[in-house]
Amino acid sequence: MIGRPTAAVLVTGSEILLGRTQDRNSGFLARSLDAVGIRLERVVAVDDRAEQLRAAIEELIASGVDLIVTSGGLGPTHDDRTVAMIAEATGRVLTLDEGALAEITSIVAGYAAQRGVPLDTLIPGARKQAMIPQGAHVLSPSGTAPGVIVPGDPTIVILPGPPTELAEVWGRALIHPALQPLLGAPLERRTLRIWNTPESTVARAFDELGGDDHGTETSICASRLEVEVVVRYPEEARAAGGRLADGLLARFGSAVYAQDDDTVEERVVADLASLGWTIACAESCTAGLVAARIGNVPGASTVLRGGIVAYANDVKSALVGVPAELIEEHGAVSAEVAISLATQICVVLGSDVGIGVTGIAGPGGGSASKPTGLVHVAVVGPDGLEQRLERRFPGDRDAVRTNSATAALHHVRLLLADAALR
Amino acid sequence: MIGRPTAAVLVTGSEILLGRTQDRNSGFLARSLDAVGIRLERVVAVDDRAEQLRAAIEELIASGVDLIVTSGGLGPTHDDRTVAMIAEATGRVLTLDEGALAEITSIVAGYAAQRGVPLDTLIPGARKQAMIPQGAHVLSPSGTAPGVIVPGDPTIVILPGPPTELAEVWGRALIHPALQPLLGAPLERRTLRIWNTPESTVARAFDELGGDDHGTETSICASRLEVEVVVRYPEEARAAGGRLADGLLARFGSAVYAQDDDTVEERVVADLASLGWTIACAESCTAGLVAARIGNVPGASTVLRGGIVAYANDVKSALVGVPAELIEEHGAVSAEVAISLATQICVVLGSDVGIGVTGIAGPGGGSASKPTGLVHVAVVGPDGLEQRLERRFPGDRDAVRTNSATAALHHVRLLLADAALR
Repeated sequence: MIGRPTAAVLVTGSEILLGRTQDRNSGFLARSLDAVGIRLERVVAVDDRAEQLRAAIEELIASGVDLIVTSGGLGPTHDDRTVAMIAEATGRVLTLDEGALAEITSIVAGYAAQRGVPLDTLIPGARKQAMIPQGAHVLSPSGTAPGVIVPGDPTIVILPGPPTELAEVWGRALIHPALQPLLGAPLERRTLRIWNTPESTVARAFDELGGDDHGTETSICASRLEVEVVVRYPEEARAAGGRLADGLLARFGSAVYAQDDDTVEERVVADLASLGWTIACAESCTAGLVAARIGNVPGASTVLRGGIVAYANDVKSALVGVPAELIEEHGAVSAEVAISLATQICVVLGSDVGIGVTGIAGPGGGSASKPTGLVHVAVVGPDGLEQRLERRFPGDRDAVRTNSATAALHHVRLLLADAALR
Repeated sequence: MIGRPTAAVLVTGSEILLGRTQDRNSGFLARSLDAVGIRLERVVAVDDRAEQLRAAIEELIASGVDLIVTSGGLGPTHDDRTVAMIAEATGRVLTLDEGALAEITSIVAGYAAQRGVPLDTLIPGARKQAMIPQGAHVLSPSGTAPGVIVPGDPTIVILPGPPTELAEVWGRALIHPALQPLLGAPLERRTLRIWNTPESTVARAFDELGGDDHGTETSICASRLEVEVVVRYPEEARAAGGRLADGLLARFGSAVYAQDDDTVEERVVADLASLGWTIACAESCTAGLVAARIGNVPGASTVLRGGIVAYANDVKSALVGVPAELIEEHGAVSAEVAISLATQICVVLGSDVGIGVTGIAGPGGGSASKPTGLVHVAVVGPDGLEQRLERRFPGDRDAVRTNSATAALHHVRLLLADAALR
């Protein structure tokens, strides 16, 4: 093994190849492998047919990786064939593992009792799931399917497909003795999360700073209004990694909102808490998205008073207290109404900070002077603190609303940064 | 070519192999390929290193598929090497395409003028992006990168990585003459979306009805509280497909909420509109998620009055009008408070239907009698129509909140179904 150990992930499932469900297991495994110092070289997804599965397994074994992790195909029926295929490909006989059978049987007995199903109808499935390649190690199930570690070169870890089961059984694999020789320290890293800067601008700065020429491995990843830069490096390239990250920080300083994996809403909740302030939202086009994102942060209840989804214009007036004349004069989608929403929601909900969002999410409702995608955001705080944004977002209804919510949260962050400086 | 044409998708990008970004292009391409009658056999993701990319391309060409579609690696810099690698693998020389160069140059000239960058710094990148394998067809860029169709066996379609660019350039590929021989009619299909039924129960019913033994291809896909069954079949298996879908419909009739790709919120908005009713939401633990999901449906403004995010208890009382004594007596997370939220929000916002959601999303805040994950949902409508749910959801904060919102929307749907029967 030269350099870091390498891995491949094999995902099975027809619903993924049909685009009916989004595979999240490979992303989870990618992050987890990176965290234990293993380089993920390849992800392959195939459907459940035997010949597809066989070809993919054989190719991955031949590819020279040190570790293969598979997801899915461990169910009780005959078309769940991952274990059998891997046994075949590694020249191992399948044998009934009595320990696994006892464990699965006790789990399905619970199901059977709960749902009034005769236990003996479930025993054939349990026996099928307890067939393990000879010499392999069993990982206790989280659902009914045990995981399996097949030792060898490569080591193969076989995991169930449901994401919560996969995560739990993978956790057991990571502490199993058979996996320890592959595990090491992750690369060191510096993370910069940058707001409202084109990815191409960040990429150019990265190139001008010398790029990855001195042993770093950098990923630059744009997600709508945010760009995440992760500079990763082995110990011997620490100086280069530091220079690169510091160089980017110097260029984009005011736009860098996190140097870790924090989201903007986590930053907002933390910053509000440290100021001892509360917040409330008055939302039109985002219809609760901003409040929902703040509400998703554990501990939000100490800072989030609540909000009003003021979708209909008369709700903006009657409930939030935006003067009807203001709406009539400037239109519901206007800077004036956004500011009134933000100011009034502080009064109505008794919060320190207020957010107002109004816009035209589309697809209909736009006009020449107020096109689809036009959004006004206002954030107000104590002592005249204020942030405003007028912007036209491209994309469909979902993109406009999501970007509006992200922009609103960033303007809260900017206001709280101003407050902290006072 | 026997049976349907087959395809493979190759996704490139280090950020995907690190798990820092979720690949959405393969799912988009999967659905699109399925819609033109092409069977997607495999998805492969590799990082941007030359040797990884080369190996993956060569293996996919050797795999015998009729079509390869690639995503990413078309940028202006030297480490964007997809086109060069595919030229090499297919034995074609890269040549400068003057038409593509003119098109790219005019696009980057626009960028240069807008951002005050000297145009000549961008010309080397434009020339690199205009290098096309000899004999291949150029697809006009959506960003700056043109797509390419390399004819042959397999046909290879090279697309840019940013999802909006990929979708646009793929649309051009689909109407290009070079792709027409591969395109056909999609399989016929029947879709059943089923609420609140374990996937294993659906799978057992599917097996009992004979499964895919008569020429159908069925995917069963669970996403939290919903299971989607898609029965797909060629024309000659139409009778078998109909029997299977009808059999499942007979078993799960009342739980089937859509026989197309509609989401529950789309159903709710359509049902409200056909009744001429409006809706409003009073949300505690979901903090706006329910309103936001209704608000994401185009045309929601005709039925959604708005809502109140009543996170703090005094907001529940002061704004929504839940009696403080009720909260004191039963606790904020109780059936009584959920019903009061739903009833009062109709009064306060003047809506026909009201939703109340209150629960303990966690991770903290639970107790022995009211554990984390406990949620009460109430939906009230005219003429005493009412739906209630008390349920303990497993999983983390995000799972509890998302499931609560989904459950609330389904209970609205059930109430509207009752109303339509009257």
